[in-house]
Amino acid sequence: MPDVVDLIRAKRDGGRLADPDIGWLIDAYTRGAVADEQMSALLMAICFRGLDPAELRAWTAAMISSGERLDLGAVSAPTVDKHSTGGVGDKVSLILAPLVASCGAAVPQLSGRGLGHTGGTLDKLESIPGWRADLDNAQIVAVLQATGCVICAAGPGLAPADRRLYALRDVTGTVESIPLIASSIMSKKIAEGTASLVLDVKVGSGAFMPGIEAARDLAQTMVELGNAHGVRTSALLTRMDAPLGRAAGNAVEVEESVATLRGEGPADLVEVTLALAREMLALAGVQADPAAALADGRALARYRDMIAAQGGDPDASLPAAAHSTVVRAAEAGFVRGLDARAVGVAAWRLGAGRARKEDSVSAAAGVICLAKPGERVSAGQPVLELRADDEARFGRALDALEGAVEIGPRPPQPLSPVLERIGPGL
Amino acid sequence: MPDVVDLIRAKRDGGRLADPDIGWLIDAYTRGAVADEQMSALLMAICFRGLDPAELRAWTAAMISSGERLDLGAVSAPTVDKHSTGGVGDKVSLILAPLVASCGAAVPQLSGRGLGHTGGTLDKLESIPGWRADLDNAQIVAVLQATGCVICAAGPGLAPADRRLYALRDVTGTVESIPLIASSIMSKKIAEGTASLVLDVKVGSGAFMPGIEAARDLAQTMVELGNAHGVRTSALLTRMDAPLGRAAGNAVEVEESVATLRGEGPADLVEVTLALAREMLALAGVQADPAAALADGRALARYRDMIAAQGGDPDASLPAAAHSTVVRAAEAGFVRGLDARAVGVAAWRLGAGRARKEDSVSAAAGVICLAKPGERVSAGQPVLELRADDEARFGRALDALEGAVEIGPRPPQPLSPVLERIGPGL
Repeated sequence: MPDVVDLIRAKRDGGRLADPDIGWLIDAYTRGAVADEQMSALLMAICFRGLDPAELRAWTAAMISSGERLDLGAVSAPTVDKHSTGGVGDKVSLILAPLVASCGAAVPQLSGRGLGHTGGTLDKLESIPGWRADLDNAQIVAVLQATGCVICAAGPGLAPADRRLYALRDVTGTVESIPLIASSIMSKKIAEGTASLVLDVKVGSGAFMPGIEAARDLAQTMVELGNAHGVRTSALLTRMDAPLGRAAGNAVEVEESVATLRGEGPADLVEVTLALAREMLALAGVQADPAAALADGRALARYRDMIAAQGGDPDASLPAAAHSTVVRAAEAGFVRGLDARAVGVAAWRLGAGRARKEDSVSAAAGVICLAKPGERVSAGQPVLELRADDEARFGRALDALEGAVEIGPRPPQPLSPVLERIGPGL
Repeated sequence: MPDVVDLIRAKRDGGRLADPDIGWLIDAYTRGAVADEQMSALLMAICFRGLDPAELRAWTAAMISSGERLDLGAVSAPTVDKHSTGGVGDKVSLILAPLVASCGAAVPQLSGRGLGHTGGTLDKLESIPGWRADLDNAQIVAVLQATGCVICAAGPGLAPADRRLYALRDVTGTVESIPLIASSIMSKKIAEGTASLVLDVKVGSGAFMPGIEAARDLAQTMVELGNAHGVRTSALLTRMDAPLGRAAGNAVEVEESVATLRGEGPADLVEVTLALAREMLALAGVQADPAAALADGRALARYRDMIAAQGGDPDASLPAAAHSTVVRAAEAGFVRGLDARAVGVAAWRLGAGRARKEDSVSAAAGVICLAKPGERVSAGQPVLELRADDEARFGRALDALEGAVEIGPRPPQPLSPVLERIGPGL
């Protein structure tokens, strides 16, 4: 049996951990034989020293082995999933899963809830009356077979070591480590059983890692890890300087997603969604044009099936906020910038997000971007609409938006929302 | 109230901690409001980032404030203590305390027990029948007033935060950090109430930090810290390549100490002891010649008083080992090296030391160096004598001594045991 203090000291001093030692560590931690204070010291040493590719593969493999691996063998279509590192107004999953399914691939999207300023896909869908996030494995496979897509909660059986490690990292200042982030995301995605995976790695103020170098490093690390574990994986780096689309919240994002599925989506959201859909279909080996599936209503029909299969009523009206207020343009001109992080923090403070994982969220709260970068505004014209169940929330949300809207005499340079692709050739 | 995760992340990212935050952290940890896993992550970040002099002062001050500070105001002579970073055969305290006391200073030596391959002063003295290490504050002052010296256990009231922190560092691979070592040692020494302090920082294979650069850095850090807290502090760097004197163990070291007090000590032990005594007397402002006090029996008389004052019988015979074996010279020549760490580990495995703090130690076990570096041996002549209560211990002790004795055709270069002095001018 390895001595845990020797392993911590080895990593601290720049050494590498052998595969069996990593397997032992993760297993012993999951069993409680390695104490929280020992694991947190090791995690901090990893924040400084990193994990080399072989260590990271072993670490991720050990996290996967801590639980079950979903068997999607009964699903006839090729499986392909998407994971986003999280952004503001990022409702892409709601559109993308039925869109890709309507093109002939199967999308098993096992998701988490939001924490902090970025929203969670499950929180958004839970604003639909009747919709349930919790499915057992048989239900996941059944919904996937019936509708070609499923968006639900990752059950406690998938990578339970990650659950414990993530909770520990959260309270010990050891979240911001590329190998630890990569292994956390990829252990769950690999355990989910998908054959292919596209990662949407966000870059910009609203992203978890704002800088492009760190985002690229994270993307590359996850792509290598996925492919090393037999999951065909690629990544797109996409911009997250301004919110994606116009809505940031829960019900408001569902409404915008449905509008997009009806062909009335905002340009940036449509562009990112189609780029991800093409990448997913290419990885899955399916020849199809997702733009056509969006235009002719197939994707919308598939969305309605998916919602209904999980108990939701796609025709129900969604919760509406009791109160709203607006932020107005200070001067006339073009919106040059709309800070994604500020809008995300405002939506969070309005009640759309949670600070701790046991908090509940408001379905109706959120921010609507009435004007987006590149649009012309007159002085005093509303730029942002804030919605909340409780008027008392407006003050701190408005504080977060201080300086978030940048207006200038000329429109900004139009920029493509997709920056780079990272992955094996197709 | 500061957010502990923010403080951990700040240190991780190379920032500095403000004095009130450090005070809050140590207090909150002592109260249990900061969890072990949070403190261990912070300690690991400190292993990488260090603490600057101001942070270290605040950290040490907070550790001192976690408990009481002994009041030695009732002691009429100037107080001066010595602390060694720990070596093999390092019985200097047993000789030095009565020697310096016999010259007119008062020596309040609050000590710990040994852990690992270096022995503990209290373990050594406990081989004397009747001798007690545990005194309350009033007894400490009374013995000090009566005999001019006291060697006893540091009570639980002194720097209790250090006790918790040390136990945590021990199991989380965060022991080897110069600011953490310095604050641990100095918080207890400052809380002990001594006016002056001489640090014996060991350098060489048997030392806790073998390299001279690290030893110098540690010495400098502790000297600054002591003086910043109003304790006149200096340090000597001394060699610990070979055991100090000939005996390594408990009773065997008491016997060698008494022999030294009788004027029959080995040269290296006498030289280090006198150098430390002169430094202590200089810091305390006492004009006296310690060599004379050793030669004329005053120091020995003071030793007998000190042992008797703590219940010990200075005339009692000490426990003797039931079994012994020897290591013989493989060839004729001069002993060129006798590896201190190997001898320390052998003594430990023979039963003289402990692996965990709840272990008990053997009074009689140990190693006697029959030949020391510079001495001529014939082939087959015994070089080391191993003593144990249990013959089964010889095997692993002999393993530790593999290659520990170096013999060559010429004697080694004679080297002074004292390398450097670090401290304010006298």
